[in-house]
Amino acid sequence: MTGDLLIRSVRPWPDSPDAPAVDVLCADGALASFGPALQAPPGVPVVDGRGGVLLPSFADVHAHLDSNRLGLPFRPHTAGPGLADLVENDRRHWRTAERGVAERATHALGRTIAAGATLVRSHAQVDVDSGLDRLEGVLAAREAHADRAAVEVVAFPQCGVLREKGTADLLEAALLAGADLVGGLDPAGYDRDPVRHLDVVFGLADKHQRGVDVHLHDAGSLGAFQVELICERVAALDMRGRVTVSHAFALSTVDSDRQRELVELLAAHDVAVTTVAPGAREPLPLRRLRREGVRLGLGQDGMRDYWSPYGNGDMLDRAWQLAYRSGFRQDELVGMCVDIATRGGASVLGVPHGLTEGSPADLVVVPGDTVTAAVMDRAPRTLVVRAGRVVAAGGELV
Amino acid sequence: MTGDLLIRSVRPWPDSPDAPAVDVLCADGALASFGPALQAPPGVPVVDGRGGVLLPSFADVHAHLDSNRLGLPFRPHTAGPGLADLVENDRRHWRTAERGVAERATHALGRTIAAGATLVRSHAQVDVDSGLDRLEGVLAAREAHADRAAVEVVAFPQCGVLREKGTADLLEAALLAGADLVGGLDPAGYDRDPVRHLDVVFGLADKHQRGVDVHLHDAGSLGAFQVELICERVAALDMRGRVTVSHAFALSTVDSDRQRELVELLAAHDVAVTTVAPGAREPLPLRRLRREGVRLGLGQDGMRDYWSPYGNGDMLDRAWQLAYRSGFRQDELVGMCVDIATRGGASVLGVPHGLTEGSPADLVVVPGDTVTAAVMDRAPRTLVVRAGRVVAAGGELV
Repeated sequence: MTGDLLIRSVRPWPDSPDAPAVDVLCADGALASFGPALQAPPGVPVVDGRGGVLLPSFADVHAHLDSNRLGLPFRPHTAGPGLADLVENDRRHWRTAERGVAERATHALGRTIAAGATLVRSHAQVDVDSGLDRLEGVLAAREAHADRAAVEVVAFPQCGVLREKGTADLLEAALLAGADLVGGLDPAGYDRDPVRHLDVVFGLADKHQRGVDVHLHDAGSLGAFQVELICERVAALDMRGRVTVSHAFALSTVDSDRQRELVELLAAHDVAVTTVAPGAREPLPLRRLRREGVRLGLGQDGMRDYWSPYGNGDMLDRAWQLAYRSGFRQDELVGMCVDIATRGGASVLGVPHGLTEGSPADLVVVPGDTVTAAVMDRAPRTLVVRAGRVVAAGGELV
Repeated sequence: MTGDLLIRSVRPWPDSPDAPAVDVLCADGALASFGPALQAPPGVPVVDGRGGVLLPSFADVHAHLDSNRLGLPFRPHTAGPGLADLVENDRRHWRTAERGVAERATHALGRTIAAGATLVRSHAQVDVDSGLDRLEGVLAAREAHADRAAVEVVAFPQCGVLREKGTADLLEAALLAGADLVGGLDPAGYDRDPVRHLDVVFGLADKHQRGVDVHLHDAGSLGAFQVELICERVAALDMRGRVTVSHAFALSTVDSDRQRELVELLAAHDVAVTTVAPGAREPLPLRRLRREGVRLGLGQDGMRDYWSPYGNGDMLDRAWQLAYRSGFRQDELVGMCVDIATRGGASVLGVPHGLTEGSPADLVVVPGDTVTAAVMDRAPRTLVVRAGRVVAAGGELV
């Protein structure tokens, strides 16, 4: 469903704070024209942007919609340190949430949309314990918000591909059940056999002609080695433009020369990168990645879940985190974080996005004198528009 | 001015989320009793805590109230990298703000109080360019909010003590004009003569019997050496308990053995430490500092000023930053950050603070199931109480 819409009084980024506000006409779900005092064609709804900053909508390209307790009573963190304990802790608890996965994922996706994201890539855990239950919850959330956001779903082997017999079959079943991409998880550090892990993941992707998104927390030379293994498979299977490395801590834990090699390798194979701006990890080399043309997006990760109390569905808050953690003060660098959170994420998903005429009318209006001020204040979004239709206003779904 | 007050329905930290809410009676500015369904003595006002978490009020122990543009039109960041350029950029711009220092400092202090802080230590820049103008602005803000917060003021040589002739005399004039402590700034890295810089600062402190608070961004062995120089002067002048090292990046940029030596040295000399939880710097060793008994507080630093666009006066948001940047997920560690932001800061100031009967009734009520949830949500404060009187409610001054 696409719509026509006239948005009055917004300042399209990156206009200066002194530039006069303009009106924006959306037609058939796309940006049609910008200008002062535009006339709404007969029957076209008119909404007020209140002079806010107009941005392309946010793209949350690393969500775990099946993993959140947003809106539920707070539970203390019960996991010990380390990935294995986090995995097992989640297994012990997720089934006892006060609401099922579909309801929780639908709520979290709604919060994400209300905060300005209309493009989402969510992982959905697939393993021998939960089977396809969690995937089905995420697919239900996607369906519930089908008119408000485009959601890609990754069949995500949170418990490894090799450690538990039957996982590969479940991943394939997930693809047949509606998942769009195949996931992976620390092929060496967690699954202990990087080559066989990646061969299973890429084998499924090749067989079903799907994209790949691999969680790679493994750092240093071990992580770097796996970036190479991934790129080798991209080349062998002709999968340029269809593979993402998430987290990619290797990039910020090797020396500068090795980092440059890895970034060039990712660029040459058109492998995308996503980050969630973790607080205690060294930030990714954002400028180098973008300079070399690597598609780079931002995500929320899990939100107030059995893994971590952080996260609220707000990609503007997450863009703030990316800027804060990177020590950025200059407006152009804060703006770069917003670009990563909007157009960068869309590039990871391979969809057009922007504020040029003809672009999809997926938009967000944020109060603020400038985009930096908007990031610093993180005020509720004035308007969120998907395909030319208002889907949220004042921070709430409409 | 102190008051009597009955606060209904709060859950004093660290009670469990399942504990029933209680009432709190404040008498003559102090905590008198906790219990279910307390009776208000005749004439004592009653306010509703709405079941929120009750904390000791926040202590912002590293503010720069003279350096903010909160509530003014946003200005892009114009400074280059490096401390010297930040100093000169501020000099070029601060006088052209739409409002003077007193008005801006008063506004920022009001925002800080409305967000739950009733204890503040603010630096006020003293240098040959601004003279005592900025100090006077901060003193005016303190006076304007005298019933709402206790504010200590540091005469802060933002442009060095030695680089510009006449600064030492101005620092002394600042002490006579109402500043409480003498400040310092990177005695080696910025002022280029650590011994003479510290001798001037500690000389003034000794002569006027005031405390000292030194900004020490210098890292690694150079910063560590200056920590030693400071402690030597604390011992020689018998200033235990009256000196603070702010930022103290040296602590997180030396190896673990040297870090332990420095922390033990600070503890032995009862030198306090403050941090502002900077995004791109390695976090301080919070647990080691507290384990060794070093008084440790948190501050806002400048707020949306000519140095940086970050900062909003909200110490709960800053406590979130401290937890996020430290990678803390466990509730007890998030709670430790809140303790640093409340009682820790009070210990830096040397004033009693807490939720025990007889403690000053300086309190904040925050919505949330638990203190971790409150930190994650950072919702507007339900109530802020100073000396038994409500000074803010719903995020606004009353």
